[in-house]
Amino acid sequence: MADAATNMRVKLPLTCFILEIILIILFGVLVQYDHETDAKAWHDRNTTHHSSEYDNDFYYRYPSFQDVHVMIFVGFGFLMTFLQRYGFSSVGFNFLIAALALQWATLMQGFFHGMHGGKIHIGVESMINADFCTGSVLISFGAVLGKTSPVQLLVMAMFEVTLFAVNEFILLTLLGTRDAGGSMTIHTFGAYFGLMVTRVLFRPNLDKSKHKNCSVYHSDLFAMIGTLYLWMFWPSFNSAITAHGDDQHRTAMNTYYSLAACTLSSYAMSALTAHDGKLDMVHIQNAALAGGVAAGTAGEMMLTPFGSMIVGFLAGIISVLGFKYLSPVLESKLKIQDTCGVHNLHGMPGILGAIVGAVTAALATRDIYGNGLEDVFPDVAEGRPAATQGGIQALSLAITLGIALLGGLIVGFILKLPMFGAPSDSACFEDSIYWEVPGEEESHEEQLTAVRTEEAEKLNA
Amino acid sequence: MADAATNMRVKLPLTCFILEIILIILFGVLVQYDHETDAKAWHDRNTTHHSSEYDNDFYYRYPSFQDVHVMIFVGFGFLMTFLQRYGFSSVGFNFLIAALALQWATLMQGFFHGMHGGKIHIGVESMINADFCTGSVLISFGAVLGKTSPVQLLVMAMFEVTLFAVNEFILLTLLGTRDAGGSMTIHTFGAYFGLMVTRVLFRPNLDKSKHKNCSVYHSDLFAMIGTLYLWMFWPSFNSAITAHGDDQHRTAMNTYYSLAACTLSSYAMSALTAHDGKLDMVHIQNAALAGGVAAGTAGEMMLTPFGSMIVGFLAGIISVLGFKYLSPVLESKLKIQDTCGVHNLHGMPGILGAIVGAVTAALATRDIYGNGLEDVFPDVAEGRPAATQGGIQALSLAITLGIALLGGLIVGFILKLPMFGAPSDSACFEDSIYWEVPGEEESHEEQLTAVRTEEAEKLNA
Amino acid sequence: MADAATNMRVKLPLTCFILEIILIILFGVLVQYDHETDAKAWHDRNTTHHSSEYDNDFYYRYPSFQDVHVMIFVGFGFLMTFLQRYGFSSVGFNFLIAALALQWATLMQGFFHGMHGGKIHIGVESMINADFCTGSVLISFGAVLGKTSPVQLLVMAMFEVTLFAVNEFILLTLLGTRDAGGSMTIHTFGAYFGLMVTRVLFRPNLDKSKHKNCSVYHSDLFAMIGTLYLWMFWPSFNSAITAHGDDQHRTAMNTYYSLAACTLSSYAMSALTAHDGKLDMVHIQNAALAGGVAAGTAGEMMLTPFGSMIVGFLAGIISVLGFKYLSPVLESKLKIQDTCGVHNLHGMPGILGAIVGAVTAALATRDIYGNGLEDVFPDVAEGRPAATQGGIQALSLAITLGIALLGGLIVGFILKLPMFGAPSDSACFEDSIYWEVPGEEESHEEQLTAVRTEEAEKLNA
Repeated sequence: MADAATNMRVKLPLTCFILEIILIILFGVLVQYDHETDAKAWHDRNTTHHSSEYDNDFYYRYPSFQDVHVMIFVGFGFLMTFLQRYGFSSVGFNFLIAALALQWATLMQGFFHGMHGGKIHIGVESMINADFCTGSVLISFGAVLGKTSPVQLLVMAMFEVTLFAVNEFILLTLLGTRDAGGSMTIHTFGAYFGLMVTRVLFRPNLDKSKHKNCSVYHSDLFAMIGTLYLWMFWPSFNSAITAHGDDQHRTAMNTYYSLAACTLSSYAMSALTAHDGKLDMVHIQNAALAGGVAAGTAGEMMLTPFGSMIVGFLAGIISVLGFKYLSPVLESKLKIQDTCGVHNLHGMPGILGAIVGAVTAALATRDIYGNGLEDVFPDVAEGRPAATQGGIQALSLAITLGIALLGGLIVGFILKLPMFGAPSDSACFEDSIYWEVPGEEESHEEQLTAVRTEEAEKLNA
Repeated sequence: MADAATNMRVKLPLTCFILEIILIILFGVLVQYDHETDAKAWHDRNTTHHSSEYDNDFYYRYPSFQDVHVMIFVGFGFLMTFLQRYGFSSVGFNFLIAALALQWATLMQGFFHGMHGGKIHIGVESMINADFCTGSVLISFGAVLGKTSPVQLLVMAMFEVTLFAVNEFILLTLLGTRDAGGSMTIHTFGAYFGLMVTRVLFRPNLDKSKHKNCSVYHSDLFAMIGTLYLWMFWPSFNSAITAHGDDQHRTAMNTYYSLAACTLSSYAMSALTAHDGKLDMVHIQNAALAGGVAAGTAGEMMLTPFGSMIVGFLAGIISVLGFKYLSPVLESKLKIQDTCGVHNLHGMPGILGAIVGAVTAALATRDIYGNGLEDVFPDVAEGRPAATQGGIQALSLAITLGIALLGGLIVGFILKLPMFGAPSDSACFEDSIYWEVPGEEESHEEQLTAVRTEEAEKLNA
Repeated sequence: MADAATNMRVKLPLTCFILEIILIILFGVLVQYDHETDAKAWHDRNTTHHSSEYDNDFYYRYPSFQDVHVMIFVGFGFLMTFLQRYGFSSVGFNFLIAALALQWATLMQGFFHGMHGGKIHIGVESMINADFCTGSVLISFGAVLGKTSPVQLLVMAMFEVTLFAVNEFILLTLLGTRDAGGSMTIHTFGAYFGLMVTRVLFRPNLDKSKHKNCSVYHSDLFAMIGTLYLWMFWPSFNSAITAHGDDQHRTAMNTYYSLAACTLSSYAMSALTAHDGKLDMVHIQNAALAGGVAAGTAGEMMLTPFGSMIVGFLAGIISVLGFKYLSPVLESKLKIQDTCGVHNLHGMPGILGAIVGAVTAALATRDIYGNGLEDVFPDVAEGRPAATQGGIQALSLAITLGIALLGGLIVGFILKLPMFGAPSDSACFEDSIYWEVPGEEESHEEQLTAVRTEEAEKLNA
């Protein structure tokens, strides 16, 4: 199982150490506490403004940050444990590349979001943004799951984080696009980047390991841990960096109702399309989450619970249809082997979310938003027509798709370099090439040995 | 396995789509953002009152909401995965009916809690209340687990939510009963409603699937995930909608100590009553939670940590005794087949909690509560004698039991309609009638095949 | 399997009941609500100070408390489920001794932290401190896991909590040591106490049950649930009781970056040192957490993200090296059988954290901290030289090691008393001596029976 190419003895330590040491040096040179995490700055400001400790953004955002953090590490990690022989890698590589990506994202986003006297200032909001960017990498990970070495994944993470920050900068800073929950910047970007990477890494003989590319009973239950944490905390995800007050409150609530409606339509479509009226765990694990993705852009807007539910309802339908009818076509015709079906959970619902956001933005008026318009659409509050804002939102979707696909194309070819140690076709979806795997359930083997011995004795007798 | 009655191909999609579309329409007609989630209303109010963004109730309650949310979806969902062949249904149907119930509860509770110009206003508090009402449905689900189709469960949820809202309205609004953590409104109601439904649905030949109605080693570990999340977050549950300040703080703390004491008495009773001094996982998974249920009414009162511990201590004892001695009698004599033992976890501890609440209320004085009396007992603060409040609390328990039992009786007979697709006796506690179940641990089957082949070859040789 | 000594029928109920009744009585005599949980006191104070409900410490600390709570019950509990036949005991005894320890810790810490008119005042901060003290007991539990009866564990918890409170009192109150995240008070203390206990309880013939002292595939996935919750919530752990404002914010952020860097170095070292370049789950489950331990003392200081990452990076390296090279030596030469390797996760990283804290303290100046110096180093702000503070920090490490080792020695001998029911060597790491264990995966046994029957028939034919 362990040929030279996939042996990680030298490659993985070398990659980890070099990257981490570079990160540490760059942090030493570039990164500083912001005015809310620096002891002196906070106390100086606090004395001047006679303000309360509560004005520290920590208290507005840390609970949301922790929910997002759980989504990144437990949510994404366990969602991918559905594979029967790839649980260690799913949760373990998710852990590894997330830990790398959040550090690199701090630097990249800090750089693009604006330096302060040559320094990047960080606090809880930058931590949330770093986790968001990491989420995008993990979505792409879902597309290539089982077919890539950890070194390939680390390399992909470095490039993807960089491109994510560029795209985010173009959208949020240059164009004034609104995308608090990241339907475009996180989900659409991560999905199409990953799909293009997996297209470039197409394996015509993947059927050699196809029997491992499925679940067993227990692995599906582990995956449901991931699903439920993503589902429950998605309201926190979408509202984590919206403006204080009604904005965070409204975003969380819109997402809550979008997800609830999405769950109903996912179950309905699963029973309708699956064999013999039976529910398919793949749909439940994934499609029921599409409502969170689709509320990523418009969630902070005055979408109303009614609108949110329609969006979630449609997202669930689209997502199940994608799993059932589109994914097989993508694989057979377009040679896109999308292990986790990220196109159905993040790709199409992300596009839906971007469109809903563009329409909702185009309909924004001061009548509806009152003085809250400054929070949700600062450019519109300063005079940009709402229709223009809507157009910019739509344009942003196109830009995101372009950068994701082009970026994925280039990074895909980089990952093909043999030195990164891709596994052979027959070793895909198999933990034991990267991990010391313990004997599974010794007791059963012992029982089998016992049966064998017994039978042998009978034959001899 | 899949006969016409239990085939969900048409029934489940139809039910989900019809219900969800009705919900969406009703939300469109009836539901509005409240003054804390509406952009215009919040900013208008904020400008007038010169208030901080922190006055938005989101910051007081959203962390508690998320803890409650985890209890509903992961807590209840995984608690029921103890069944060896019903894990998908336990966590999956829990997910489905919770997603439906929280939407319908928003409407029902909004209707009874008072409309604003013909509209229901929603925010984080209504979200918590919707999750609470959902919790009640999930308790009833525990009683009928394994013996009902998803369509039956959806129908039950719709009726139960409606009756829950009626009972809650009578208690909290008409009578001025205090029940912040829902010992009565949630636990007693959900338990006795579910027990009556399972009584009506009595299956004399359930022994046909009795061998599946038990756990295996791994399923008990999955169930412990549910248990621990319920246990850890119960302080948030009981304090989620109590008044700001000392009330939330005190309620969380009382519940914390009640649960700790309950855990000790549950372990003690389990070892004392179980075979050979060994601990029984059923007791640990369930009885250790009874302290949270029993602190549901009095948790916000000046129960003291001392009082809370006594309550928790007793709740643990009662609960284990119920599992050991009462449940078998309920099944054999009263024909109540209570799959999860909700009578022991929610029924009796709920009644205990109601009684403790009545006594504590009857002993309330302004000496003890000071100006906090307005928060905990607004009617007493306005002149109602404490003894009267205590009497009303006791009366509320009787009303709750009456509505739950009568409601369960009627709904039980409705669920008997053949069109809802109840499973046959031999198909109970079996995922594969509703789900595409993956081969369990293929490797073992392969090993068995290998053994068979080997032996066959030996015989031929 | 069940000999008289380990039969818990009488011992466990008796111990639980006696301890719990003593606790309830002591709570009745000694414990009161503090001014933020008492209805009268809070409303009186609030009226006088015209303050907001937000000034209640509940809103500053309860989200952190809940994260810590999850670490204690799910984090520690599931981290130890890696053992193939000891999952019930790992998560179940963790639950039991934690529920006991947090009650006893409330009393012990309340006693040493200062009584108010003969009463112990409690609120959310005391709840966090009780959970912290409990964490220390659970670390020691990790060292003796699988080799001790629940009665032994309860007795150990009572003694250890007491000694923890003494050590904490000497450090924090008498010496003015800073240790918000407990590198010394929690991790170093718990680890060396547990190591000494397991040394005293040395079993020369433990190889009789050695084959059970390892993991299987699924148990390693369960353990990853524990790992990830500990990893994600460690920022909340270290910041839970630091001062409001920049302090909590900074501590959480420092810990976040320390853990991220630690994860990279843990993976690197695991691949570098393990067989054939494969990753070892034991390293990932444990060493990746060392960065949280090592940031426990200096996390609240102006360590900078740069400094935090260096600390985490080193902690990961030390921890993996400990698992690979030191643990076998400790076992063979020093007769220390450390089941979970707590020396590598809590012992050495705790010492590293203490040293980093001493150095960082010695370098503190008002230039760096501004008026924040009062929060982080109140004694230095009042005139104590920073170098002295650093010296006191170093002295505190020595004191902690001394009390832990001496305490562990004495308690270890107490636990050797036969009446506490230690399991025999061959029954170690085995759930079935304490738990009713369900048949594992009946379906497989049935399959085996089927094979047996088939073959028998063939032979007869």
